[in-house]
Amino acid sequence: MSGVLVTGASGFLGLPLVRELAADGEEVHALSRHPADEELEGVRWHRLDMLDPDAVRRVVQEVRAERLVHLAWFVSHGQFWSATENVDWVQASLGLLRAFAAAGGQRALLVGSCAEYAWGGEGDLDEADSPLDPQSLYGVCKDALRRIAVAYASEAGTELAWARLFFLYGPREQPARLVPAVIRSLLAGERVATGTGEQVRDLMHVHDAAAALAAVLDSGLVGPVNVASGRATELGEVLDLIGSLTGAGELIERGAREPAGSDPARIVARVQRLEREVGFRPSLSLSEGLAATVDWWREVERAPTARP
Amino acid sequence: MSGVLVTGASGFLGLPLVRELAADGEEVHALSRHPADEELEGVRWHRLDMLDPDAVRRVVQEVRAERLVHLAWFVSHGQFWSATENVDWVQASLGLLRAFAAAGGQRALLVGSCAEYAWGGEGDLDEADSPLDPQSLYGVCKDALRRIAVAYASEAGTELAWARLFFLYGPREQPARLVPAVIRSLLAGERVATGTGEQVRDLMHVHDAAAALAAVLDSGLVGPVNVASGRATELGEVLDLIGSLTGAGELIERGAREPAGSDPARIVARVQRLEREVGFRPSLSLSEGLAATVDWWREVERAPTARP
Repeated sequence: MSGVLVTGASGFLGLPLVRELAADGEEVHALSRHPADEELEGVRWHRLDMLDPDAVRRVVQEVRAERLVHLAWFVSHGQFWSATENVDWVQASLGLLRAFAAAGGQRALLVGSCAEYAWGGEGDLDEADSPLDPQSLYGVCKDALRRIAVAYASEAGTELAWARLFFLYGPREQPARLVPAVIRSLLAGERVATGTGEQVRDLMHVHDAAAALAAVLDSGLVGPVNVASGRATELGEVLDLIGSLTGAGELIERGAREPAGSDPARIVARVQRLEREVGFRPSLSLSEGLAATVDWWREVERAPTARP
Repeated sequence: MSGVLVTGASGFLGLPLVRELAADGEEVHALSRHPADEELEGVRWHRLDMLDPDAVRRVVQEVRAERLVHLAWFVSHGQFWSATENVDWVQASLGLLRAFAAAGGQRALLVGSCAEYAWGGEGDLDEADSPLDPQSLYGVCKDALRRIAVAYASEAGTELAWARLFFLYGPREQPARLVPAVIRSLLAGERVATGTGEQVRDLMHVHDAAAALAAVLDSGLVGPVNVASGRATELGEVLDLIGSLTGAGELIERGAREPAGSDPARIVARVQRLEREVGFRPSLSLSEGLAATVDWWREVERAPTARP
């Protein structure tokens, strides 16, 4: 028994993870509704709708992977917080986990979110000490899925790790999200209205996140772990860096957009578990990560029909 | 749009509830793998495996009930606490709720358990004040299902009430459970070994529980509500009552059975919500309820091939 099954494998985080695992010499079974048009040694793509439980069971049975990384979820920007599709993905995730355990799977890594935590409390967010109090349907579904998955894995004799992602950025992010929206506007010479930029967030380049997930998978860690940088970044600093990297910072109209009333002031992870138990630290600074991201968008905008 | 869809309708609690709703003049769609062999005015039985999501969707679409009471779950005595089937029932329950909301359903009543609460703390268990900390896979699955269902219903515009059941007894209880096991042994003139009987529990006759669920369904209550008696009963008192009702109390060997190490000393509900917001109080005292139960088993044991 060997191999890693990856769901959401052609996604923003999934494709970098598949590349990372392939580079490590893993045998990867990459599941996606839209397999990536990319030949990688050791990677076999499976076209699959994760919301079709019979199809999921068939592939899991056929593949009989030793390990699982489950990334697939409903992630449409602006919609995923409250979309009722979140419930379908709880069902799909439980079905996947059941099928994986039934097929003899040994270790599963599922992904959660900083949205599982209560926001707005004192101090940064810690797996052991911070209260959980998700306020969105998305956060509630991730939190509840974790509760079930942890208890189920304990009965089924499967190892289960749960990676809480914070704020990722990098190549192939959905264009409507903050970082790509600002980069693309500035590269196109268009003005862009932003908020005041005072919110503090924990940002991580998606390639670092992929490397962190691979490291968590290789570790013996079970239960929740923040997969984040542990660095507090004002969004204004992100805007300034993109401005200077594109040479078009004067196009940013800071404060022209009303802040969302519910936007918490600070969402930053404590990363002691990731550092000490997994031994992982991110390799890219914010300026390096943003520079790589701006470069990627420059390439894309030059050749819009052939996105890498 | 009208009618009530009831799942688990032929079960220990389901059948009394179906009878109660029928007596109230409701149009009842009763779902079960094994429909009861019982003609009731206003009740239509549907044979259905709840773990078949397509079949569930078809029936829910066809019936288009205004209200739902979802009782079906994996409940095999001695197994349900840790059975991995609990996970299947989370999936099935979410699929049912999605289908019900999609078909225009207005109000759903799902059932949870006292196993959602932390056991062993100070004071009796209260919906608003008592901490939740389920220790079994069963409890975790019920707790997590409630979290998702409440958040989902809020997005979907469905009313959702969540009845936490405590310890039910009465006709048709699984014979291996405490009350029927003791009654049947004593009626058969056999000795029965029990624990010391010092644990304190909240017991409710299943007919009272059915009436309570019907009342919660008819109320506007949303969120969790303890469906329980609010009375603290030592299990020894139950043994004494069964002994005197059967006239065979001398056959009970109190303390001959080792107590389960993890059995908490006291599990009793506070029932202010049920009394004040729903206006429900149980009609049977413990001695009345046990007398009716002993009578029922006498009938069954006399005519073992035709259980009522």
